[in-house]
Amino acid sequence: MPAYRAPLRDMHFVFDEVLDAYATLQTLPSQREFGNDLGGAILEEAAKLAENVLAPLNASGDQQGCQYDPQTKAVKVPDGFRSAYQQFAQGGWTALACEPEFGGQGLPHVLNMMVEEMVCSANLSLGMYPGLTHGAINALTAHGTRAQQEQYLPKLISGEWTGTMCLTEPQCGTDLGLIRTRALPNADGSYAISGTKIWITGGEHDLADNILHLVLAKLPDAPNSVKGISLFLVPKFLACGTRNGAFCGGLEHKMGIKGSATCVMNFEGAQGWLIGEPNKGMSCMFTMMNSARLMVGMQGLGIAENAYQISLGFARERLQGRALSGPKMADKPADSIMVHPDVRRNLLRQKVMIEGCRALAYFTGLQMDVAHQHQDPEVRERADDLLQLLTPVVKSFLTDEGFNCANDGLQVLGGSGYTQDWGIEQLVRDSRITRIYEGTNGIQALDLVGRKLGLGGGRAVRSYFALIEGWLQAHPHAPHGTALAQAFKQLQQATLWIVTQGMQDPEQAGAAATPYLRLFALVSLAWFWARMAAVAQQQLAAGSSETAFYSAKVKSADFYMSRVLTESSGLLAEVTAGKASLMAFSDEEFAA
Amino acid sequence: MPAYRAPLRDMHFVFDEVLDAYATLQTLPSQREFGNDLGGAILEEAAKLAENVLAPLNASGDQQGCQYDPQTKAVKVPDGFRSAYQQFAQGGWTALACEPEFGGQGLPHVLNMMVEEMVCSANLSLGMYPGLTHGAINALTAHGTRAQQEQYLPKLISGEWTGTMCLTEPQCGTDLGLIRTRALPNADGSYAISGTKIWITGGEHDLADNILHLVLAKLPDAPNSVKGISLFLVPKFLACGTRNGAFCGGLEHKMGIKGSATCVMNFEGAQGWLIGEPNKGMSCMFTMMNSARLMVGMQGLGIAENAYQISLGFARERLQGRALSGPKMADKPADSIMVHPDVRRNLLRQKVMIEGCRALAYFTGLQMDVAHQHQDPEVRERADDLLQLLTPVVKSFLTDEGFNCANDGLQVLGGSGYTQDWGIEQLVRDSRITRIYEGTNGIQALDLVGRKLGLGGGRAVRSYFALIEGWLQAHPHAPHGTALAQAFKQLQQATLWIVTQGMQDPEQAGAAATPYLRLFALVSLAWFWARMAAVAQQQLAAGSSETAFYSAKVKSADFYMSRVLTESSGLLAEVTAGKASLMAFSDEEFAA
Repeated sequence: MPAYRAPLRDMHFVFDEVLDAYATLQTLPSQREFGNDLGGAILEEAAKLAENVLAPLNASGDQQGCQYDPQTKAVKVPDGFRSAYQQFAQGGWTALACEPEFGGQGLPHVLNMMVEEMVCSANLSLGMYPGLTHGAINALTAHGTRAQQEQYLPKLISGEWTGTMCLTEPQCGTDLGLIRTRALPNADGSYAISGTKIWITGGEHDLADNILHLVLAKLPDAPNSVKGISLFLVPKFLACGTRNGAFCGGLEHKMGIKGSATCVMNFEGAQGWLIGEPNKGMSCMFTMMNSARLMVGMQGLGIAENAYQISLGFARERLQGRALSGPKMADKPADSIMVHPDVRRNLLRQKVMIEGCRALAYFTGLQMDVAHQHQDPEVRERADDLLQLLTPVVKSFLTDEGFNCANDGLQVLGGSGYTQDWGIEQLVRDSRITRIYEGTNGIQALDLVGRKLGLGGGRAVRSYFALIEGWLQAHPHAPHGTALAQAFKQLQQATLWIVTQGMQDPEQAGAAATPYLRLFALVSLAWFWARMAAVAQQQLAAGSSETAFYSAKVKSADFYMSRVLTESSGLLAEVTAGKASLMAFSDEEFAA
Repeated sequence: MPAYRAPLRDMHFVFDEVLDAYATLQTLPSQREFGNDLGGAILEEAAKLAENVLAPLNASGDQQGCQYDPQTKAVKVPDGFRSAYQQFAQGGWTALACEPEFGGQGLPHVLNMMVEEMVCSANLSLGMYPGLTHGAINALTAHGTRAQQEQYLPKLISGEWTGTMCLTEPQCGTDLGLIRTRALPNADGSYAISGTKIWITGGEHDLADNILHLVLAKLPDAPNSVKGISLFLVPKFLACGTRNGAFCGGLEHKMGIKGSATCVMNFEGAQGWLIGEPNKGMSCMFTMMNSARLMVGMQGLGIAENAYQISLGFARERLQGRALSGPKMADKPADSIMVHPDVRRNLLRQKVMIEGCRALAYFTGLQMDVAHQHQDPEVRERADDLLQLLTPVVKSFLTDEGFNCANDGLQVLGGSGYTQDWGIEQLVRDSRITRIYEGTNGIQALDLVGRKLGLGGGRAVRSYFALIEGWLQAHPHAPHGTALAQAFKQLQQATLWIVTQGMQDPEQAGAAATPYLRLFALVSLAWFWARMAAVAQQQLAAGSSETAFYSAKVKSADFYMSRVLTESSGLLAEVTAGKASLMAFSDEEFAA
C-alpha cells in the first residue's frame, strides 16, 4: 500500500492563504510571536512523526489488537505502541496546546487540530490514547481546583500519565441522567466511587505509568436526572502509590480501532475527588466533550485523507480496460483506470470533500483560539458563537464523509480493497465508530437545530450567514458565486422553516435535523470552495509557478458545485417535508 | 440479538398481491401446476431452514473463519457449516430451479431468488457455496455438451459436488482480456490448464466430495483480448478418482464473509475440458454472470432485511431520553428511542428501501422465468429485454442499499452496534463485498448506460417506461401518482440526455452512469411503492382485517415519496452536468 504522506501543502494553503490564520492568531496576546516559521516547522515535525512512527504500526496494531489478562486485569497494547507513544509524549505533542504554567507549550488549538488530522490519518487507534488525555486536561484546566491542577496537569500534559472519560454505562450512553455509578463521601473529603462504566477508551493499558479517570457519578440524594451528576477524578494509582479500586473488567470486541483498548471499567469503592461543584458534572463533561467533538471530526478527516491517498495510488497503477474515448496507454496492455469517468468521479468526490472539510475545520478551530484568548469580549463572543454553531457540523459531517471516503476509496480498489492487504478496509472499520462516539451524528444534528440555531436568539447563525453574505457581496464576479448563492438561499429557507416550525413543535425540528445538518455542511463547503477557488485564481493571475496546485483548486470548485452541491435541493425538500410521514407509523406498523 | 424471522408476509404481498405472479407463471408450460399452495409451502420450509439451521451459524462462522493447511492444501470451513450444507442439499434447495431431467425440481427462478434472500439474511457466507454452484449449473445447462451435462449436472444439482467460477487473476478482474491462464490441448481431446486464479469462492473446502471448477483460460494462439478466452471445466477429482492438479494456494484475509473460503487457486497442468466453443468463453461466462448478478442483488436485500430486524428490535427495547413532545413511557426511567423522529427516519429509510427493492427484484426475477419458458417468442423477447435492462439495476442498487441499511441499522444501535455482540457490524462487513463482486457497481452502471439503454435500439427501456406510463394512465387518481410522475419525467429527461450525448461521446454516458443508475432505481421503486400503496388501499377499502400491514404500506409510500425520492432532482442535475468537470483534471492535479 502507498505510504501515507502528510498533505502539508494543502494545510498551508488553507491555513496561510485562505484563512490568513497567522494574522488572526497574532491578535491574541499569547500568540503574538506565533508566525509561519514556527507553525511550518511544527507541522513538518508532526508529519515526520505521523509518517515514520505512527503509520507503520497501523495495520499491525489492527491485526494484533489489545490483549486482556483476566488474572492481573492488565491490558497489553499492540507491539510498538508503547515506544511510539513515548516518542509522541517526549516530542512534546501531548503538550502542544496546553497551558505553559503546567508544562504546556501554549500553542494554538487550531494547530493541535492540524496535528490531530495527521495522527489520525496515520494511526487512529494509537492517537486515541493521547486524544482522550486531552479531554481530561481540558476539564481539569476549566474546573479543577488550583491544587488539583498542580497535582495532575503536569503529569497529563507531559504524557507521563494518560486520562479517560468515564461516562457511558450499560443502560445509558446518550441519556446520562440514567447513570447508576455512586459516589459516597469519605471522612477525608474524598469519595468512594462504585459502579460499572463501559466503552472506556484507554481505561487500562501499558503505555504509561498511571491513568487518571474522570468519572461521572451520582452523590447520595442527587436529583434523578442529568442535574444530579457530578464529575470525579479517580487515579489508577493514588499519590501514595497504592493501587486504587478502578479495574478493567474486559475489553470490547469491536469492528475496528482494535489497537485502542475499549474497556469495561469496574469502580469498586475507588477513591476519588470531586471536580467542580456537586451536581454540575454535565457542564464539566461538556468542557471535555466540545473540544473532543472537534477532534473526532479531525479523525474523520484524517481517515478520509489516507483513503484518498491509497485509492489514488492504486488507480494510477492499476491497468484495466481501455478509455471509452480510445486507448491512452497504447504501449501497455491496458490503460490505467484513471481514464474512466466513473473512477475520476469517485476520486474527485473524496478530494473535494477532504479539502473542503479541512477548510471548514480549521476555520472552526481558529474560532476556538479567538474565543479563548481575544482581549475584546465582543470578538470572543462572536468567535464562541461560531465555534458552538459549527462544532456539531464538523463532528458529524467530517465523520460521515470520512466513512464515505473510506468506502469510496475501497470501491476504487475493487476486490483488492476488500482484502486486508491494502489497509483500506481497516479505514472503513476504524472510521465507522467516529459517527457514533462523543454523541452520535443524529445527536449532533439535534444539537444544531435544538440548541445552536437558537443560540443568543439566533445570533450565532445570523452571524455565520452574514459572513457568507458578506463574502458574496465582496466577490460579485466570483465564478462560483452563483452556485453558492443559490444553495445558500436554500439553506436560509431551510433554516427559516426549522426556526418557525420548531418553535411550535420541537418534533418538526427533530424530523428535519439530519438532512438540515447535511445541507448546512454542504453549503458551508460551497462557501469555502468558492473562497479557495478565488484565492487560487489570484495566485494563477499573479503568475504563481504552482500551476497544477492552484488550477486543481479551481477545477475542484467546478466539480463541487456541479456534482456535489446538487444534493442541496433534495435536502431542502426533505427538511420541509415535515414530520408527518415519520410520526404516522404506529409501533405495530414498523414491524408489519 | 433478535433472531432473524423470514418476512414471509411481505414476500407473499409482493409476489401474490402486487405482481400476481402465480397468474404469470401459470402461463408457462412447465409451471401450469405451480400455485400458491406449493409456493407458500416451499417458502415456509425455506424460512425454517434459514431461521433454524443457517442463521445460528452466522456469527460463529464469522469469528472462526476458514482455515487453510499449507501441508495438505486443504481448507476447513467453520464448525457446523458442513452439516448445515448437507441439510441444505438434502432438503433439495440446490435443485430448486434446476432442470428436472438432471434431478432438478424445475420450479421458477423467481422462487429461487426468494429463497436466496432468506438464505443471505441468515448466513451470506454459507449461502455462497451453493450460490456459486448455481452459476456452474447454468453455464453447463446452456453451453455443455449432452455428455458433459449427463456427467456433471446431477452431481451439482443434488449438491453432492459444488462448483466455482474461476475468472479473476492478480493482474485482472474487470478486464478479463488480460488473463494469462493457458490451456494446452492433450492428445485425448482434453486440455492441460495452467495458471493462477484469485478470489475463487469455494475454490477449496470440506463441505462436499468434489468441486467442479469452471475456468477461463486462453488456447494457444488465441486472440489477445476478451475474444480469445475459452471456458473449461476442471474437476478437483477426475472420474477415475485421481486428484487433479487444481490446488488451493491460500486464503484471502478479508473484511467480511469470513466463513466463505476465498481461495487463490493454482492450476498446475490440471486436466480440463472445453465448454462451448473455443474463444467463446466470455459469452459462456455471462450466462453464469447474469443470473449471479441477480443473486448478488438478493444478497444485498437479505442483509438489509436482517439489519432492519436487528435495529428495530434494539430501538424498541432501548430506553434513552424522552420524546421531544413530552414523556411517552412515564412509568419507565426513559422512553424507548422509537419516539425520536430521527430514529424513525433511519428505520423507515431501511424499511421502504427493503420492501421497494423486494418488489423490484421479484418483478425482475419473474421476467427470467417468462424469458426462458414462455411459448410466445414476442413475450419471451419483451421479458428478456426487461430482465437485461433491470439486472444491473438490481445488482447495484440492492447491494448499495444493503450496505446502507446495514450501516443505518448499526447507527441505531450506537456503540452497541460497533461491538460484535449484536451481529450488525458483521452485516456491514459482509455486505461490503456485494458492491464489488460479479462486476463492481460502477461496471453495472456502465452496463446500464452503455449496453442496456441501447438494447434493441432502445426497445428495452421504451418497453419498461411504457409500463410505468401505462400504470399512471390506468391510475389517474392514485395518491402517489403525482410524485411518481414528476420523478419519472426526470428519469426520462436523464435518459434522453444520456442517449443523445452518449451517442456522440461515450465518456458523457460514462460520466453520468452512476447517478443515472441510482435515479433509475429510485424511480423504479417509486413505481412499485405507488403500486403497493394502491393494492393496500384496495384491501383496506375492502375491509381487510390486516389493517396494520396494509396501512403501513400506504404510509411507507408517503414516506418514500416525501423523504427518499427527493434525491431525484440532484441526480438529474448531476447526470446533465456532463463530463467536463471530471475530465478536466490532469494526473498531476489529482495529486496536487
